[in-house]
Amino acid sequence: MNKKGLAILMRTKMRPLPPAAIKRVNQMEVPPQENSNVVSSTPNASIYPPRDFEQVRDSMHSAILMNKTEILDAALSEFCEGYFSLSKENRRKLLLTLAREYDLDRIQVRELMKQYLGLELPIGEKAQHSSGQLEELSLSAFYRIERNLRHALKPNYEVLFERLNTHPGGLKFLSDIRADILSFLAEENFPSLRALDSYLKEKLGTWLSPANLELHNITWDDPASLLEKIVAYEAVHPISSLLDLKRRLGVGRRCFGYLHPAIPGEPLIFIEVALMKDVAETIQEVLWDDPPIPECEATSALFYSISSTQPGLSGINLGKFLIKRVIDVVKKDMPIISIFATLSPIPGYMQWLLSKLASAEISGPTFRENLLKQEEEGALVDAAVEFSSSKNGMEVMKYLLTSTNYEWTKSAKIISVLRPPMMRLCARYLLQEKKRGKALDSVANFHLQNGAMIGRLNWMADRSEKGLTQSGGIMVNYIYRVENIEENAHSYYSKGHIQATSDVSCFVEVTCWS
Amino acid sequence: MNKKGLAILMRTKMRPLPPAAIKRVNQMEVPPQENSNVVSSTPNASIYPPRDFEQVRDSMHSAILMNKTEILDAALSEFCEGYFSLSKENRRKLLLTLAREYDLDRIQVRELMKQYLGLELPIGEKAQHSSGQLEELSLSAFYRIERNLRHALKPNYEVLFERLNTHPGGLKFLSDIRADILSFLAEENFPSLRALDSYLKEKLGTWLSPANLELHNITWDDPASLLEKIVAYEAVHPISSLLDLKRRLGVGRRCFGYLHPAIPGEPLIFIEVALMKDVAETIQEVLWDDPPIPECEATSALFYSISSTQPGLSGINLGKFLIKRVIDVVKKDMPIISIFATLSPIPGYMQWLLSKLASAEISGPTFRENLLKQEEEGALVDAAVEFSSSKNGMEVMKYLLTSTNYEWTKSAKIISVLRPPMMRLCARYLLQEKKRGKALDSVANFHLQNGAMIGRLNWMADRSEKGLTQSGGIMVNYIYRVENIEENAHSYYSKGHIQATSDVSCFVEVTCWS
Repeated sequence: MNKKGLAILMRTKMRPLPPAAIKRVNQMEVPPQENSNVVSSTPNASIYPPRDFEQVRDSMHSAILMNKTEILDAALSEFCEGYFSLSKENRRKLLLTLAREYDLDRIQVRELMKQYLGLELPIGEKAQHSSGQLEELSLSAFYRIERNLRHALKPNYEVLFERLNTHPGGLKFLSDIRADILSFLAEENFPSLRALDSYLKEKLGTWLSPANLELHNITWDDPASLLEKIVAYEAVHPISSLLDLKRRLGVGRRCFGYLHPAIPGEPLIFIEVALMKDVAETIQEVLWDDPPIPECEATSALFYSISSTQPGLSGINLGKFLIKRVIDVVKKDMPIISIFATLSPIPGYMQWLLSKLASAEISGPTFRENLLKQEEEGALVDAAVEFSSSKNGMEVMKYLLTSTNYEWTKSAKIISVLRPPMMRLCARYLLQEKKRGKALDSVANFHLQNGAMIGRLNWMADRSEKGLTQSGGIMVNYIYRVENIEENAHSYYSKGHIQATSDVSCFVEVTCWS
Repeated sequence: MNKKGLAILMRTKMRPLPPAAIKRVNQMEVPPQENSNVVSSTPNASIYPPRDFEQVRDSMHSAILMNKTEILDAALSEFCEGYFSLSKENRRKLLLTLAREYDLDRIQVRELMKQYLGLELPIGEKAQHSSGQLEELSLSAFYRIERNLRHALKPNYEVLFERLNTHPGGLKFLSDIRADILSFLAEENFPSLRALDSYLKEKLGTWLSPANLELHNITWDDPASLLEKIVAYEAVHPISSLLDLKRRLGVGRRCFGYLHPAIPGEPLIFIEVALMKDVAETIQEVLWDDPPIPECEATSALFYSISSTQPGLSGINLGKFLIKRVIDVVKKDMPIISIFATLSPIPGYMQWLLSKLASAEISGPTFRENLLKQEEEGALVDAAVEFSSSKNGMEVMKYLLTSTNYEWTKSAKIISVLRPPMMRLCARYLLQEKKRGKALDSVANFHLQNGAMIGRLNWMADRSEKGLTQSGGIMVNYIYRVENIEENAHSYYSKGHIQATSDVSCFVEVTCWS
């Protein structure tokens, strides 16, 4: 191929792979909402010969109770293939059968509990400090029953999970069926299936502990089969061509993935890093064609995309460890880099803001909360006089933000009057709006639980359709300060404290934590 | 170096490494007796600066309760180093502190149990088949408390184990402290420490599951640092020189080891294989200098040595999976090989036999069991007339077997009269002498639980001092038949059934299983 031909190939627009080949893409920056209707990630049923429900249920039964290795392997393979051949309805039925009929023996559990409660606690134990040989002996019975109870509390389906974990392809299969389970639970709550899911999630979390994961620096020298995965799963800023991919792996950038030995050639999660002089304010600064500075001048590492590839690993935070290890590797490699930050969307902001504006509308003037300050309202009404005759600032704001084709982004005047309330309300949304004590915004929650702090809000940082629809064009830098990561994560986890720089927190006049 | 110099180097007798460098060698063929006084395997205290007990206890406390990563890593390192600096007495004290003061919260456990017992089992549950949405809902409370109980039943020291597992060098450290724990428990029974040990053993078993282990074909091309470990840990047939090592890795032989990514360059267990035409009867046939046949003529793979390197992994059967995987690899590589067998000592035989002979002596003629058949007794008394004037066959036998310098092995006549009773009693020892339902002989127990069967007893197969003292010079071939491995293992595990070829089982006139 001549030079020109190669150049054309490298620039050819890549088309998304067919669904069956790439599975569903999970976008860590926008994790699926718990109650959204998640599409099943598992291979299409049509590529497997059809099987009866009873047939697959029997192979599941064998896979749990079988003892002969040779046959066991066959039974596990048969079960995995059989499962994929089932319709959605039958998969649900099968998983419910597993959850209900291979549960634990509650009669045995109750028996052990009665024995346990019949024992008398030694005096020292009550004071939480036992010692001495006598007490040691009196505790023996406790140790024995506690051990037996630990075993009795393991559901029978654990055997299947354990066996699949050591079966070739089994770990991936477990992740695939968990994706199905989550989609079934999103449609309807089955307590038995939820209990199974919580058990499976804990197991997967153990097997995928960072100690078992390999950090891989993904480069242009990696196999095409692996690079293909990066293209398929990159969910934040889609990769448009081979040239685009090559640039993401080239000078001024890094890409790191976590691989598990049992799932070769497919990173479970990967992160893209840009090496910069300053922390980027807009996404355009990051998606350059040619590096703006030589690598040696970079002092910041910007995480501009993090994508998880396995929907079945939802809730297992691999990103936290990945970010920490990437920081370690980059610091070691380039000690001059001292700032680690993201440039992230705020995917729930506009939905929240518009529903606030709508509810203000229906509440009527007496009860509604005025989201705007007086001077903001005045400026908005004045500036938008050619679009709307309303004198109500919130009505004007809603009208502008929902205008077709984002008309408001075409007027410098409108942009400038929207900026103060949009930025202030965004800070409020990030810092104060919570759900079960955690940040309402899923990306904020992700980085805060990893130990980041909220750094800076950037106005008009992402003017793409998605950026405007979800985040009102705003992007935020989450900052990872190595020395505070664990402390931040802990205080967020235990008390819901959100760390932010004073620039952001003073927007909403809350105590500045930083 | 000239050719002659190299030849001298290769033949230079290797001296064992100093204890601190090689740690204790654990010989899988002769696992340590549970009540033997095991020497601690951990590094010598003298290489670390001394620390107070209180200092190390505090670092342990920090390692359990700390939340900041940076400091946590330091605390874990400090604790590991501090532990090794302690005297044996203080190590025991520290481990008992861990077992007692970082135990579980029994008051919380009892509270959860009371809640659980207060729930009424749904009707379906009693019949072990629940279904329907109504029962699902009534089970929710069970699922919730079961989950909470699983967590409440985890001792606080689990945090330390989990953290060490992901800390560099931590997995090895856990194996080292378990070796200490086992040695303390061998001296005195501490129920709290035994409970901790059983918990740690289960954890180690999970982390070292075959899925996390890499099978490595060890060759002369491997790094010297790894080969050095093979020399240090080979416990069955010591490696005498570099040339000996090279031969063990050369034509006609194989060596495979299991490595864990967290313990690099050090196999946890390794096995040595000789490729032969027939299953060897004596150890001399295996320890050849030059291969007796070309590899392509081999039809048997003989496992002549299996050594475990970590005493702290005692009771975690890595050998079982190693043997199965090695069989798979060898079969795939050389399909002509159809027989897989060991040539193993019977390390507990002589101890058992001599104690039987001694107890017969003190029981007096009325109550004693005559171990010998009439014709065996007659032949023995006649043949040994020049050594002993006794007319009692068992007395003569004991006298011969305990004679200095194994005098009996120097007379062909004595050897031939000892053979029938020695072989017959050995078959009885292997097939019928049990301890808690399992074979009394530790090596037999190891291979039987792996699914092997007893194949053939070989008379005068190991005339080394160790071979004569422990096994009366007899060696046994355990046979691994791929198609029966799991079935054998299961029936041995569940019912104590020992599979043997008819040659062996008919020695003792028991039912032949094969």
